[in-house]
Amino acid sequence: MKTPHHESVLSRAARILEAFSQDDPVLTVSEIARRSGLHVATASRLVGELVAHGFLSRDADRGVRIGVRLWELVTRASPTLSLRDAAMPFMEGLHDVVGHHVQLSVLDGDDVLFLERLSAPNAVINYTRIAGRLALHVSSSGLVLLAHGPADLKERILAGPLTTYTPATPATPVRLRALMAEIRQQGYAYCPGYVHVEALGIAAPVRGADGTVVAALSVIVPDEPGAQAIVPVVRTAARGISRALGRRDTPEVRGGR
Amino acid sequence: MKTPHHESVLSRAARILEAFSQDDPVLTVSEIARRSGLHVATASRLVGELVAHGFLSRDADRGVRIGVRLWELVTRASPTLSLRDAAMPFMEGLHDVVGHHVQLSVLDGDDVLFLERLSAPNAVINYTRIAGRLALHVSSSGLVLLAHGPADLKERILAGPLTTYTPATPATPVRLRALMAEIRQQGYAYCPGYVHVEALGIAAPVRGADGTVVAALSVIVPDEPGAQAIVPVVRTAARGISRALGRRDTPEVRGGR
Repeated sequence: MKTPHHESVLSRAARILEAFSQDDPVLTVSEIARRSGLHVATASRLVGELVAHGFLSRDADRGVRIGVRLWELVTRASPTLSLRDAAMPFMEGLHDVVGHHVQLSVLDGDDVLFLERLSAPNAVINYTRIAGRLALHVSSSGLVLLAHGPADLKERILAGPLTTYTPATPATPVRLRALMAEIRQQGYAYCPGYVHVEALGIAAPVRGADGTVVAALSVIVPDEPGAQAIVPVVRTAARGISRALGRRDTPEVRGGR
Repeated sequence: MKTPHHESVLSRAARILEAFSQDDPVLTVSEIARRSGLHVATASRLVGELVAHGFLSRDADRGVRIGVRLWELVTRASPTLSLRDAAMPFMEGLHDVVGHHVQLSVLDGDDVLFLERLSAPNAVINYTRIAGRLALHVSSSGLVLLAHGPADLKERILAGPLTTYTPATPATPVRLRALMAEIRQQGYAYCPGYVHVEALGIAAPVRGADGTVVAALSVIVPDEPGAQAIVPVVRTAARGISRALGRRDTPEVRGGR
């Protein structure tokens, strides 16, 4: 029943949606064609159909962007909405106290995917964005998710190249193994200068009702003396989100998932 | 070049995405078929293709939901991201002061579409949701957007049936016209009991760089004596967002768009 014809329409539509990014939310049809590797005529026809169904929309000046209708369909039934709803009150409280950046992230494939971020206007530098990704070994969020992740994921990351952002980024499997053990033992990740020399990431695990780690809550603050005092605030907020997700309020098991 | 074959795949894909909602973010293939009006075999094949491209994903128990990959593509290039980013710091500040619900919304078609909401755990009742819609004439947000909307929209809403939620909801064109004039003149909408008898909506316009109203900022609080004191707080936050969007900080023109 499956025809190549069917497959190619959705496959091409996916390639067109992938052409857009936070830096380039508005593209011309020829830019879309170039980025998606489609002929301009094909891209033009498909963009027309995607606009007709509300997947894309056209600006007054013929620029093309993601359609509000598609945003609505995806957001109202978002796969991450219940987690985000549970987390937001705690994230707001944490942001009031800590300022700078407060982030909620999940494991997706071999990356950390950032679902939500609250940022103060003059906060310390931060490379992450909502719906942005980072490699697991470089940030406090990723390290928490990796430390509590499945064994095959750990082996894959330990075996692969470990890209570094700064001299402080974990660059060897030995150091990464030690970091993961420490994070599981102490219940949080403390990562000064791993992504940017001036920034400190602190992350704690968020657990679902069955106790498995479903997300990471993190703050990015300036790497300054006294920042260690933020750790209990982050951990308390992460436990609050876990309770809101139905996690029983028992002492955290140390050293396990 | 346009074939019915092409059209129908995207059209059916759109119908499948429309089957999901906040109340039903996880559906079986047979539920998807029923809601989208497709044969089960067709729905099953298309769901498989949408899963293959990350538009949908399957749970461990074969439930189908919106895919994290689609969420990511749509969110990172969201048509509303710059508005949302500009608004969030002001929304958080407003939420700290007022509590209950703080909402950001835009005009979409003949509805108000809610882009963002911050809610306190024990806040007053509120029917709106992120990516949810309401008719324009029933809520403070919708009335602000309608009052500053294009003439043909106003005529259409005034001519159409005016659904009421409570005895306070505007139910006649005469009252609606008077309300719109008042909102433009005073610079905000004050709507006690329009959507729910116990709730009060207060909304103010958010203006883009060229001065046109691009969004509404609103709070939903209990309809209690003294709530009028919240009005200047909402208006100040809405002006802050307008400035962040590039609106020059000149006195607001009264009575105009």
